[in-house]
Amino acid sequence: MRALNQSLSVAIRYSVHFTEDLFAPDNLRLRKVVGHGRRHLNRLLCVVDRGACTHRADLPARIQNYCVRHRDVLDLVCAPILVPGGERVKSTPTYVARIQEAVHRHGLCRHSYILAIGGGAVLDMTGFAAATAHRGIRLVRIPTTVLSQNDVAVGVKNSVNAFNKKNFLGTFAPPYAVVNDSTFLETLSDRDWRAGTSEAVKVSLVRDPVFFRFLEHNAQAIAGRSMNAMAYLIRRCAQLHMEHMAEGNDPFETGSSRPLDFGHWAAHKLEQLTRFRLRHGEAVAIGVALDSTYSMRIGLLSETDWRRILGLLSQLGFQLRVPRRFQRLHGRDNPDSLEHGLTEFREHLGGELTILLLKGIGSGIEVHQIDDRILAESIAILDRAQ
Amino acid sequence: MRALNQSLSVAIRYSVHFTEDLFAPDNLRLRKVVGHGRRHLNRLLCVVDRGACTHRADLPARIQNYCVRHRDVLDLVCAPILVPGGERVKSTPTYVARIQEAVHRHGLCRHSYILAIGGGAVLDMTGFAAATAHRGIRLVRIPTTVLSQNDVAVGVKNSVNAFNKKNFLGTFAPPYAVVNDSTFLETLSDRDWRAGTSEAVKVSLVRDPVFFRFLEHNAQAIAGRSMNAMAYLIRRCAQLHMEHMAEGNDPFETGSSRPLDFGHWAAHKLEQLTRFRLRHGEAVAIGVALDSTYSMRIGLLSETDWRRILGLLSQLGFQLRVPRRFQRLHGRDNPDSLEHGLTEFREHLGGELTILLLKGIGSGIEVHQIDDRILAESIAILDRAQ
Repeated sequence: MRALNQSLSVAIRYSVHFTEDLFAPDNLRLRKVVGHGRRHLNRLLCVVDRGACTHRADLPARIQNYCVRHRDVLDLVCAPILVPGGERVKSTPTYVARIQEAVHRHGLCRHSYILAIGGGAVLDMTGFAAATAHRGIRLVRIPTTVLSQNDVAVGVKNSVNAFNKKNFLGTFAPPYAVVNDSTFLETLSDRDWRAGTSEAVKVSLVRDPVFFRFLEHNAQAIAGRSMNAMAYLIRRCAQLHMEHMAEGNDPFETGSSRPLDFGHWAAHKLEQLTRFRLRHGEAVAIGVALDSTYSMRIGLLSETDWRRILGLLSQLGFQLRVPRRFQRLHGRDNPDSLEHGLTEFREHLGGELTILLLKGIGSGIEVHQIDDRILAESIAILDRAQ
Repeated sequence: MRALNQSLSVAIRYSVHFTEDLFAPDNLRLRKVVGHGRRHLNRLLCVVDRGACTHRADLPARIQNYCVRHRDVLDLVCAPILVPGGERVKSTPTYVARIQEAVHRHGLCRHSYILAIGGGAVLDMTGFAAATAHRGIRLVRIPTTVLSQNDVAVGVKNSVNAFNKKNFLGTFAPPYAVVNDSTFLETLSDRDWRAGTSEAVKVSLVRDPVFFRFLEHNAQAIAGRSMNAMAYLIRRCAQLHMEHMAEGNDPFETGSSRPLDFGHWAAHKLEQLTRFRLRHGEAVAIGVALDSTYSMRIGLLSETDWRRILGLLSQLGFQLRVPRRFQRLHGRDNPDSLEHGLTEFREHLGGELTILLLKGIGSGIEVHQIDDRILAESIAILDRAQ
């Protein structure tokens, strides 16, 4: 009997909004995003990163007040659920279960909303809970860190960790909307402010030399906490990520190629090896520096461009050495070894190992082999370069 | 600052194949589906419904032998994982965890395959595990019952139960491929053979009066286990389900409308109230009969058509009465009451209650209100009709 062939197309649309002081009672942005202009009550559940409350203890109360003020449109079904920030929230299954239990208890439906307010880890974890309850409750991401505003929040992925593997469980699920509130950035520690900028360097290296020059010219202003420079960095970085997804024609990553993950095989592994004492952005800075060095070492990238890349990352305040105790390689099959990250990267994406290297600033090329000896040399070169 | 707008399109393609004796060593179907003609080793994990092994205890061994015979293409990473069939496998989280643990332990990647061999519950549960590990491992559904061949396997959904709610957790994720093997149907009990046919009646009522007439003309042959008649029933039912998905332009069900769920609000609730002693297909037969009766009672459906519908379902062997102890209604807020199914149905889909009723055979109409008094009368009419 002949086979039956199915061919479907799923349209995905969402917007990334920019505002200041989102929960000021007269800021209409959230009201508009959720209510899309209609006077109709919408049920909301709210998950808040404790990290976002460190310098603004009144955040949960302000969210509640905002919903009371706009109670003709926003029906907050219970007090905001507070969860820890950082990888811990992705590694402990109880947080996902707690959100799903609240969806059940308050009878949220697929047309209800979950607001995820926090850094990348909280957005990832909440997104996984939202995507799987009723096969998907509308998720409004409200990222509160540089990294989550310019990168995590604009994508179509969510995840939690399992079996000691980062992002082992997750789904592809676009957000209903993203709202970037620059006010959250004011109270970030210098470390968190800086950590998010390495993804901007990365995306500029892969896609946009003009943006790289902007970052070079503004590195000091960014490091000195200029909100104007940071606002442009975030917007442009988010835009480049979104354009890449739309152009790539493979938003759900059925292939093995992932050029936006430049430097990430090492970054993911370094986060894990340091038990997340390195922030994701800090690990990305090292990963980008390492793969740039490898690109230079095999003659793909000019030494001038390599120096510019390392210079920019240093000016932004990053430490670029691979931590000493992970500099020695022990083989791709050894999970305690940095280069096991190549094994994990291939395993996660599937198929052939596919790594992006640089031919120049703004221009990448995919390779399918990494030479461990040259990798070891690149680690040593990077160690001496700083 | 202006918002950034994202617009993406995700293409979904898969085929539903038909074969006999899939694991006969010289049947090339599975080899072709997984290997798509290339000589390249593909890693497989296999999950098998114990129910499918009842009358063929050698099924796991045959699967292993098949993979050994085709070892240039198929690399079965471990012995088939046996799981119980039926709702229990969806209500016990350990089964999902066990599959994900196997994915981790054997280092499967997103280009590896999980074969799910079994009835609808096993396909749903395995599909959820496959869709969330690495954000989606390729799932080949090999349905072994009438219901799973003509309905469950061809769709883009998976799910497990949680908080005592059917399908509370799940994702939208298309299969990589579906392979229907008619040999599995030969050893089904009469009860399971019959149970799958109610979904065919349902889809004919909603979409295709010609198919309804086919079912009327062949009801006795189908009830008498004619494999030819059943083969056509399955193929046409699967095709109608697939066409509906492709036409609806909303495969991931962002709206509130779900016409293929005709009769399902009561069916889901009856399954749950009887603790799944009613099979899904048996409950669907009652749900279809009940909503047809309601349609007739409010003057939407002619009495002639109503009698044809009840006649066909009876001829196929279905019992159509709402079980006596659930005939009395206790209000929509009472979870022990049949009509709480309307509350759960609305909650699951979200938005306004949307129920399909019938104007005629092959022609539905959506309504947004169900009158509880008329519903009670319809239950009584149905009780007397048999």
